[in-house]
Amino acid sequence: MYICSTYHTHHMPLSKNRIKYIHSLEQKKVRKSEKVFLAEGPKLVKDLLGHFPCLFLAAVPEWLIKNNIPDADEIVEVSQDELCRASLLKTPQEVLAIFRQPEENTDYTVIEHSLCLALDDIQDPGNLGTIIRLADWFGIEHLFCSPNTADVYNPKTIQATMGGIARVKIHYTSLPDLIRTLDKTPVYGTFLNGKNIYQEQLSANGLIVMGNEGNGITAEVEQLITSRLYIPNYPEARETSESLNVAIATAVVCAEFRRQVASK
Amino acid sequence: MYICSTYHTHHMPLSKNRIKYIHSLEQKKVRKSEKVFLAEGPKLVKDLLGHFPCLFLAAVPEWLIKNNIPDADEIVEVSQDELCRASLLKTPQEVLAIFRQPEENTDYTVIEHSLCLALDDIQDPGNLGTIIRLADWFGIEHLFCSPNTADVYNPKTIQATMGGIARVKIHYTSLPDLIRTLDKTPVYGTFLNGKNIYQEQLSANGLIVMGNEGNGITAEVEQLITSRLYIPNYPEARETSESLNVAIATAVVCAEFRRQVASK
Repeated sequence: MYICSTYHTHHMPLSKNRIKYIHSLEQKKVRKSEKVFLAEGPKLVKDLLGHFPCLFLAAVPEWLIKNNIPDADEIVEVSQDELCRASLLKTPQEVLAIFRQPEENTDYTVIEHSLCLALDDIQDPGNLGTIIRLADWFGIEHLFCSPNTADVYNPKTIQATMGGIARVKIHYTSLPDLIRTLDKTPVYGTFLNGKNIYQEQLSANGLIVMGNEGNGITAEVEQLITSRLYIPNYPEARETSESLNVAIATAVVCAEFRRQVASK
Repeated sequence: MYICSTYHTHHMPLSKNRIKYIHSLEQKKVRKSEKVFLAEGPKLVKDLLGHFPCLFLAAVPEWLIKNNIPDADEIVEVSQDELCRASLLKTPQEVLAIFRQPEENTDYTVIEHSLCLALDDIQDPGNLGTIIRLADWFGIEHLFCSPNTADVYNPKTIQATMGGIARVKIHYTSLPDLIRTLDKTPVYGTFLNGKNIYQEQLSANGLIVMGNEGNGITAEVEQLITSRLYIPNYPEARETSESLNVAIATAVVCAEFRRQVASK
């Protein structure tokens, strides 16, 4: 078949074992031991190819024709029906790929000369992915996650990053230990009794800590915060929801840091 | 049993039919014909009781003891096991309730004297719920949705509003028809080629239109926008994700409108 010989793909049915393996990547322990993650859809897979080594790629013929010899260890041409059986998405989209997780190489000094984010036990994979996507938008290159934060390689998280995972570096580490290494670098957190963020002078470097969806920032980390911020509701002191979704709050905070720096 | 006689509840197993009815509320056509919606969890149900007529409430004894005779047509005490069978949540939480949908009473003139939001074909129920929650935070009382926008009474949407649905009024209507009734009222939209939002004078009234997750604002609505805005990324003109999640973009835009008005 023409496509096969040109693109070095082989068209054979995805074996039951292969499909089982793809599905097993929903489990954190498998992703961790295999050091891989799954990504789906033309836009996301294209964004990640070249950023992470691709071990396996399965695509429908239409995708393979449009994408010249993708750089992957193994490429399999599949039918739409096979793709549907392998996919974790409700509406599978042309291509799925398995990538190798990058090695973590943590250098805490980035916090001294750039703005970074820290997540203190964020639980929802979708929230985590959305935060990575917006960190990418706002030029935040390093995201530090407490060990209890959701796994960045959860397929739901990877999909929600919309490719941001290719540019934002993720480090899992103890946040108290991390913050204690910082010297005179501001550490921000949002609290219901913090100061109005719009009336504070925000810096171009330092760490912004965002807390768990239900419980906020943990007590140990809270003690290490140097600047307590608050996103005012409108009109102030009106009865509203008790809080904003954590990804929403992260966006409003990051936007304000960048607005202040850009307007200087 | 003590609780039963005091609180006028009856403890009987939830019938299969009743559980089937609760599950059927995942379907829009059932919600529409029955004019009801489902809400779950102590915080959400408490927020909604008093705002919407409650037709049915099922709760575990612990919840009933803490909540004095909730105002509901029918109250059933259930075991944790029964609650799990009825619930649509992964982790059911003490109580679920069925409420009557409010009547829509649309008065377009609210846009002339307050800031309102319009959603042009938002598809994801979670995004819609998150937007209602943040509209509540930022004191936006009216949300206009195009007919193709996700259904606000989808259980996923209701859960994501975190009670915001009790305060934000939702109107489904043709957005072009709505905008054409406005006279000299600003109509804002976000576009990749819009003007930097931080360099624009934003008003305390008018309509902010947010577009579909994949395709943005529809062509017909785009022609009626009077002010094209853009959320700058950082540093500008850097390679990033192509866009922000629509709920994230809505939050950044609403926060900036409110910041400007509050600082005047």
